[in-house]
Amino acid sequence: MSLLDRINDCNNGTDVSAYRPFEVNQTRVGWIHRRFSAALEPFEDVFNIHEKTISLSDKLKDYQSRSAGLDVVLRSLDEEGWFPGWRDEAYPVGTGFYDQPILEMERTAVPRFGVSAYGVHINGFVRDGDKLLMWIARRADDKPTYPGMLDNFVAGGQPVGLGLMENVLKESAEEAAVPEEIARKARPVGAISYRREEDNCLKPDVMFVFDMELPRDFVPTNTDGELSDFSLLPAQKVMEITADTADFKFNCAAVNVDFFIRHGILGPDDPDYVEIQRGLHR
Amino acid sequence: MSLLDRINDCNNGTDVSAYRPFEVNQTRVGWIHRRFSAALEPFEDVFNIHEKTISLSDKLKDYQSRSAGLDVVLRSLDEEGWFPGWRDEAYPVGTGFYDQPILEMERTAVPRFGVSAYGVHINGFVRDGDKLLMWIARRADDKPTYPGMLDNFVAGGQPVGLGLMENVLKESAEEAAVPEEIARKARPVGAISYRREEDNCLKPDVMFVFDMELPRDFVPTNTDGELSDFSLLPAQKVMEITADTADFKFNCAAVNVDFFIRHGILGPDDPDYVEIQRGLHR
Repeated sequence: MSLLDRINDCNNGTDVSAYRPFEVNQTRVGWIHRRFSAALEPFEDVFNIHEKTISLSDKLKDYQSRSAGLDVVLRSLDEEGWFPGWRDEAYPVGTGFYDQPILEMERTAVPRFGVSAYGVHINGFVRDGDKLLMWIARRADDKPTYPGMLDNFVAGGQPVGLGLMENVLKESAEEAAVPEEIARKARPVGAISYRREEDNCLKPDVMFVFDMELPRDFVPTNTDGELSDFSLLPAQKVMEITADTADFKFNCAAVNVDFFIRHGILGPDDPDYVEIQRGLHR
Repeated sequence: MSLLDRINDCNNGTDVSAYRPFEVNQTRVGWIHRRFSAALEPFEDVFNIHEKTISLSDKLKDYQSRSAGLDVVLRSLDEEGWFPGWRDEAYPVGTGFYDQPILEMERTAVPRFGVSAYGVHINGFVRDGDKLLMWIARRADDKPTYPGMLDNFVAGGQPVGLGLMENVLKESAEEAAVPEEIARKARPVGAISYRREEDNCLKPDVMFVFDMELPRDFVPTNTDGELSDFSLLPAQKVMEITADTADFKFNCAAVNVDFFIRHGILGPDDPDYVEIQRGLHR
């Protein structure tokens, strides 16, 4: 395997022929697989299911009514087991991160509707002379998604009503007990974009990436039960793990690769150098 | 104007309907505009001009014969004024930076054939507390391309037979008199890709980007006559110039924007943040 394979794992959602556009107000906001659309058919007041599109009923005219109408459907489908690990956390739905959302949706349903999700991923690193060490997290074994897999230092989805930097501070405190004065030094360093397909779900997501330099004597502690442990490893070793194993959650591997490039750990002698960077910004 | 406009300036080569693929061995290696193809018609021994493609004659069977055959044509066309500023510098031609080149071509002819060019661009910066200062160059008024425009600290095209890091050292010495022990600390930080159209030429180019931290007391001096002067400016000020003026050469503006993102000078509060990054890796 290679680092490019990891990036390609994030961009395996190229064929959408089994999906129909999910529209609100004649605007596409997601993609719904045919295996899921059948489950929506009983809810005629909320969904208009056409041959080529699935749209939210025009009778739901504003943010509140759309969100409430959809919520009834999602809670009913959750009882049928469609959304394991229901979080009771609202994600915005719309045409882009910087556009006004037109409804909100329970987080666990977002990939099932092929709606774009947003999040923050934080590389926690320590300087060791000229070298860098990276703090790597392992996801708890009881997490509903990607249990036991390796993760970035801190990462979290972007819910309704929270700014990116607020989310960085909140997740850094919850996931790694980072004191606020350290967490405030996190620096935005870019965003990665991809379109991943998994289990008939589509994730056309954008993750905002931050670098957080940590003091040598700082040791993270998880406080929310979402991570099982942390390790401090040379960045070069993290690159080997990322390239040689599928231990990292798919998008965390991409965040790692972006870190390796920005810090000169992966250089232009790699024949996939240019292609990898294109794959980080689909 | 905005920073996204600068990135879009680099990617204005989306419509290739006025171009025909330029092929060698049934493989496309460039794009030729119809205004230039007429000039190739007299050279029947070298070019096969078809309705949909222009190809190098199959009689030219290897790197040497292809390069030599083409060179005769180019020198003849140079006398007609097609290649102002002829450099006598060979660029590799092929299917990608990491693939074996299949011929070489005089540098000034490369955009006319829509062949991908490669180069190194170096951000020379100085730390000033928490802030960064950037050394910015101005191109000499007698340079054949983009005279008088602002440029990155050091930049140069990638000729045949030189490694990227060798080129970084060579250009740093020639353009800014950087001592080798400083230049060796340049760190690869990524590559930008774009497709620019200009004057019926296509530039589907890749620039390898390096950051070079400079000592506070270092002052660059141009030794090859290609630059007229250098200025040391706060990165924030360079961002304003990049956004508000068209003073930077088009691809140097993109290298600046990439620097602003990687160093957190441009953050995710900019509504073009994600789109800009996609545009840096076309």
